Amino acid sequence: MVKTTERRERQRKALVLAAERTIAEKGLAGLKARDLADAIGCSLGAIYNLVQDMDELVLRVGSRTLARLDEALADSTRQCTRNSNDGATETLVAIAKTYCAFARENLQLWRTLFEHRMAEGSIVPEWAISEQMTMFRYILAPLRMLQPQASEPELALLCRTLFSAVHGVVMLGLEDKLVAVPAAALDGQIEALVRLIGKGLMQGA
Amino acid sequence: MVKTTERRERQRKALVLAAERTIAEKGLAGLKARDLADAIGCSLGAIYNLVQDMDELVLRVGSRTLARLDEALADSTRQCTRNSNDGATETLVAIAKTYCAFARENLQLWRTLFEHRMAEGSIVPEWAISEQMTMFRYILAPLRMLQPQASEPELALLCRTLFSAVHGVVMLGLEDKLVAVPAAALDGQIEALVRLIGKGLMQGA
Repeated sequence: MVKTTERRERQRKALVLAAERTIAEKGLAGLKARDLADAIGCSLGAIYNLVQDMDELVLRVGSRTLARLDEALADSTRQCTRNSNDGATETLVAIAKTYCAFARENLQLWRTLFEHRMAEGSIVPEWAISEQMTMFRYILAPLRMLQPQASEPELALLCRTLFSAVHGVVMLGLEDKLVAVPAAALDGQIEALVRLIGKGLMQGA
Repeated sequence: MVKTTERRERQRKALVLAAERTIAEKGLAGLKARDLADAIGCSLGAIYNLVQDMDELVLRVGSRTLARLDEALADSTRQCTRNSNDGATETLVAIAKTYCAFARENLQLWRTLFEHRMAEGSIVPEWAISEQMTMFRYILAPLRMLQPQASEPELALLCRTLFSAVHGVVMLGLEDKLVAVPAAALDGQIEALVRLIGKGLMQGA
C-alpha cells in the first residue's frame, strides 16, 4: 500500500516535470495529455489517476514557476537596505528588474501563469490563489515604508497597481509589440518607471 | 468598369463590418471566413478578391477601432488646459481614463488590437504601423511639457513606457485576473498611478 502511494507520487512528479518541459518548449497551447502519457510511459487514462484534470496539472506547473520566482525575488531583495525611503525605492526597482529578468528567462512558463484559464465552471483552488497572493509581500514591505500613513487595504490596492504597471511594460516588451518599449531599452525604462513612482510616493498624497 | 469597382468597394466595406461585428461578439478566435462569406452573401473564394488574406481583414477592423479610440482621446483632451505642468498631468490622467473606458466598452475589439499576430512570414503593412504610432501624439504633447529638457528619442521611450504601464493595469483589470486591480477600483487606481508618475516627472530627473 505504501509502495503504491510512493509510486504514484513519483509518477505524479514525472508528469508535472514533463508538462513543465513541454510548456517551456512549446507554450501552453502545445500541452497535450496524449504526449505526456507517452513521455512518462503510462496510458492516457492513467494520467487522470495522477491529476484530476489538465487544469490541476497546469496549476502544479505554475506552482513550480512561482516558487522559482519567489526565490529570485528573495535573492534580489536580500541585498537591499530597507531602513530608508531611498532604500525602499531601490528595493522596488530591484523587484521590478528581477521580475523582468525572470519573465525573459522563463518566457513560456511565465506567460502560462497569465494565459491559463480554468475550464468552464471550475474555480481556482485555494492553494493556488494563496501562492499567487503571497508574492505581493515583496512589494508590500517597501510600499508600507514609502506610505506609512496608508491603510492596509490602500496598500494592497497600490501593490496591485504597481505590479500591473510593471507587468504591462514587461509583457508588451517581451511580446515585442509595435507599441512596446524596445527590448534593448526595457530594463532601463522599467527602472525609470519605478523611480518616478517612488518619487511620487515620497512626495506624499 | 466604374460600377464593378464601386460594387467591390461596397462589398469590401460590408465584409469589414461583418468581421467587426463578429469580433465584437465572439472575439478574434470566433472569426471564420466561411461565416463572413455567408453574412455578406458571397462565396468563400470571393472574400479573397476583397482582401488579400484574413490578416488584412483583421487589420482593417483594427483600423476602425483605432479611429474610434483616436476620436475618444481627441474629445477627452480638448477640454484640458495644457499651459501648465498641472494641466499636463491632468491631460495624462484624462487620456489614461479614456483609454480604460474605451477598452471596457470595446473589450473584444480592443483585445484584438493586441492579440492579433500576422501569419508566419507576413509583416505588418506600413499604413497599419503608422496608424498605431500616431496615437502616441496624445501622450507625447503633455510629456514634452513635463520634461522640457528631454530629447525626442527619450520622450518617445517614456511615452511607450507610460502607455505600457497604464495598459498593464487596464489589461489585467479587465481580464479580471487574481492579481489584478479589482474592477471597482480600476479607474481610481489608474488615476492614482498617472498622478504619481506626473509628480515624479515634475520633480525632474
